[in-house]
Amino acid sequence: MTKVALQEFLTPPAEMARRRGPQDEIVLSSRVRLARNLEGCPFPGTAKKEQRQKVLGTMLPAVESLKLMQNGFSTAMDALTALDKTILVERHLISREHAARNVGSGLVLNKDESVCVMINEEDHLRMQALLPGFQIKQAWKLIDGVDTELEKSLDYAFSPVFGFLTACPTNLGTAIRVSAMLHLPGLVLSEQIEPIIQSVNKLGLAVRGLYGEGTEALGNIFQVSNQMTLGEAETSIAERLEKVVKQIIEHEENARGTLLERSPKTVYNHIGRAYGVLSNAHSISSKESMNLLSFLRLGLELGHFPGVDRSVVDELFVQTQPAHLQRMHTGRLSGEERDLLRADMLRQQLRNMSRPVMQAPPGQADDSAEKTN
Amino acid sequence: MTKVALQEFLTPPAEMARRRGPQDEIVLSSRVRLARNLEGCPFPGTAKKEQRQKVLGTMLPAVESLKLMQNGFSTAMDALTALDKTILVERHLISREHAARNVGSGLVLNKDESVCVMINEEDHLRMQALLPGFQIKQAWKLIDGVDTELEKSLDYAFSPVFGFLTACPTNLGTAIRVSAMLHLPGLVLSEQIEPIIQSVNKLGLAVRGLYGEGTEALGNIFQVSNQMTLGEAETSIAERLEKVVKQIIEHEENARGTLLERSPKTVYNHIGRAYGVLSNAHSISSKESMNLLSFLRLGLELGHFPGVDRSVVDELFVQTQPAHLQRMHTGRLSGEERDLLRADMLRQQLRNMSRPVMQAPPGQADDSAEKTN
Repeated sequence: MTKVALQEFLTPPAEMARRRGPQDEIVLSSRVRLARNLEGCPFPGTAKKEQRQKVLGTMLPAVESLKLMQNGFSTAMDALTALDKTILVERHLISREHAARNVGSGLVLNKDESVCVMINEEDHLRMQALLPGFQIKQAWKLIDGVDTELEKSLDYAFSPVFGFLTACPTNLGTAIRVSAMLHLPGLVLSEQIEPIIQSVNKLGLAVRGLYGEGTEALGNIFQVSNQMTLGEAETSIAERLEKVVKQIIEHEENARGTLLERSPKTVYNHIGRAYGVLSNAHSISSKESMNLLSFLRLGLELGHFPGVDRSVVDELFVQTQPAHLQRMHTGRLSGEERDLLRADMLRQQLRNMSRPVMQAPPGQADDSAEKTN
Repeated sequence: MTKVALQEFLTPPAEMARRRGPQDEIVLSSRVRLARNLEGCPFPGTAKKEQRQKVLGTMLPAVESLKLMQNGFSTAMDALTALDKTILVERHLISREHAARNVGSGLVLNKDESVCVMINEEDHLRMQALLPGFQIKQAWKLIDGVDTELEKSLDYAFSPVFGFLTACPTNLGTAIRVSAMLHLPGLVLSEQIEPIIQSVNKLGLAVRGLYGEGTEALGNIFQVSNQMTLGEAETSIAERLEKVVKQIIEHEENARGTLLERSPKTVYNHIGRAYGVLSNAHSISSKESMNLLSFLRLGLELGHFPGVDRSVVDELFVQTQPAHLQRMHTGRLSGEERDLLRADMLRQQLRNMSRPVMQAPPGQADDSAEKTN
């Protein structure tokens, strides 16, 4: 395990933003999470402090010793600052619930942040693999390996009838949650997102906002995940989600194509305004900047910002979040101060990015085509 | 009188925008309007068509023959297209009510559009002088001259008790309306506009939006005018309005100063965003563009756009209005098409205008100071 402060350990946002994965123009990341509990110990929610500390004492070394976790980061939750915890939430490494935990809870993170194990969240163990782009199978393999290794030294609570036992019955059985984070501005702009969400729901899958359950779909980003964990094998759950995500990707691509064909100005308008506000505002909220960065990302993918790498935008997606902004400054920032600094950062970063060059789809005249100024 | 089409006669918006007047950084224009009626003829609202035509037949040559109206433009309202009429409204030359008139109503305009006489609007004669900047006295002198000349050949309806008789009793007496069009972004941004409006109301003056009674204060533009026309001499009414306008100018200047001192970022934010949206949108409504142009104008006055003349913005204020946009295009435009063309025009015009350079007031550090890119 590395013995540095969390913030030193974490990958710089610029490097995170440069990580690529298959079809990452639409699938931002793929994630598989497993829940496990120790036989004979009460679940964290009902356990006493001493019991939780005992579980943590067993778990931490077990997880740390895994080969995959070499040069990783390990900590008790009470050793982290509130800022550290929020940064982990903003990176989708831990849940909001886990960020609220202190004594008796812990966390182990591998070197490249692709594997994160939470100890004493809702269950004794919550382990996840998080990979850039569309890599559901790979994420499943990765976390399955971690699980298999840990099983050798830990005695999991398992019922031959119900499968893995979990604190919440909705996780019972495989205790698996497979999810993909999707960037769907085309479906949002063409107002097809609601029917798509409804169809996906009917297939037994959930669609949520950027930070999971009960959160808003900021930046046109949606999380699709399985609901059922009982009566279906892990690989089958993963494959089913993969199929549905493939279909959503197709719908998004079609929506973008149709928009550009039928109402290119609507698309240009969103992209142009997003660029205009992001590169000129002097105060901007996290929510607004997320929503506008989404259209900037779309513009980059449509080739409206020649010579600009998408990582510029992807880095800003990370950096403009409240805790990431705060860590770059000494002294506690108020929300208002953060809005000013966020705008300063955006102007600074986008200063050298020229105005979008809007190109009409082949065969269509477009009087709005502009040269870079 | 000139015998060309109205649209050929009218001053190009670029020339209008270059006209300067005292304190025109806040006072956009000064206007004095007089209402007069002919003795022994029913008011236009109750007159029969033949009676109105007879009045028009008397009035038109009388007004046309004035020295001030030489090389002017004279027409019956039914000879104008709907587009012509709306253009006149957008230039504040005629009222919306007059634009709705046809047979039996008319209009005479002098060469530089500073004097406009409406025939058979609500009264037989409505004559106005409209000058750029803070020139209430000059506007009064100008229209008083027109009135004196006309009085020589026309028999005005006048009562020794009530003064000039008018169709609506609220105009009785002097039948004068003195007004100034004020650009007050500072008072709006600092949320002082409401108390100011209330104080002005208490002084017996009205505050209205851009197009007079019952209209919105688009672009932070407000019209201040007298309410009472009875029991006070014209010069006294004009002087009183002048005094109040002077005070409002001071309040606006103070508001701008205080804003820049206490919350410069709020000001920069509005100016920056306005520039960003106006120069990058691909669709924009008349209302939004008016409101954003207001902040661009403020930015110009604060020196944030070095080397750019204010007439660029003032011209856009005129050109982006619906009828002015329509007249530049063949074929009737829908509202949606106008929004696209308005955005095209704005991008085109602002393309060579560099990003605002925000300077902190003397003695204050400002990390947001930017070089032009």
